[in-house]
Amino acid sequence: MTTTPFSPRGTEAEIEEGTAFAPKFDADGLIPVVATDAKSGEVLMFAWMNAEALEKTISTGDAWYWSRSRKALWRKGETSGQTQKVVELRIDCDQDALLMKVEVGGDGGACHVGYRSCFYRSVPLGKSAAPLALHFEAKKLPGHKHG
Amino acid sequence: MTTTPFSPRGTEAEIEEGTAFAPKFDADGLIPVVATDAKSGEVLMFAWMNAEALEKTISTGDAWYWSRSRKALWRKGETSGQTQKVVELRIDCDQDALLMKVEVGGDGGACHVGYRSCFYRSVPLGKSAAPLALHFEAKKLPGHKHG
Repeated sequence: MTTTPFSPRGTEAEIEEGTAFAPKFDADGLIPVVATDAKSGEVLMFAWMNAEALEKTISTGDAWYWSRSRKALWRKGETSGQTQKVVELRIDCDQDALLMKVEVGGDGGACHVGYRSCFYRSVPLGKSAAPLALHFEAKKLPGHKHG
Repeated sequence: MTTTPFSPRGTEAEIEEGTAFAPKFDADGLIPVVATDAKSGEVLMFAWMNAEALEKTISTGDAWYWSRSRKALWRKGETSGQTQKVVELRIDCDQDALLMKVEVGGDGGACHVGYRSCFYRSVPLGKSAAPLALHFEAKKLPGHKHG
């Protein structure tokens, strides 16, 4: 576990009901982050932060992530223009997941494939279990593709 | 990597723009899941599923998760009564994160600490980076505690 500039983890009661921000990073030094649109509440994307990305996000108010594929720190929108201004940052009960409400810059999208939200496909429910070769009900959900 | 009853991963184009449901499980056989309230859109909780939990969720329409601390499959609400009926299941662009819109049973909560949402604490923004001993602005956000 790498050292972080944040508070130590403490007891379960401290983590859940205390006032100290003590985020848990996993074995790879990462914490999961859910970003939602501050206006609509829509879930835009799911990504990861390391301690440095979280520190930069808190101090600058811009969303910084850790790219696991590129193994690099990454300010959202740096190349795409789809920046994320953090309106609110929350953490969950056991302090191992973050929620960010963001204002999206550029064309308003968050997904590199070209959709506003990364969650542009619905999985059919109620199908029997085996063999599961499920196909999406709609490849492109209406109103989600832009540009 | 364990074998799953779902489609094989395929090329990047197939994963992102194809029609086959090919969820990616991590080295521990897990995929992250964000659950939102189907009515309000509020993010309720963040959790994990293994292939079996996902299969059960899809076939039954009830939310099943994998508890990493208890190392056990877990039907949400089994003991708390805070069941989750899945209204919609979505997957993101690279098919390594799930989003579920759920109808919550019981007292309408999702968090074991007693809040409607697990994300009941706000982290202050704009603070200088080092040393970061951040404290929550409000321990309990208004309207979030119940019961």
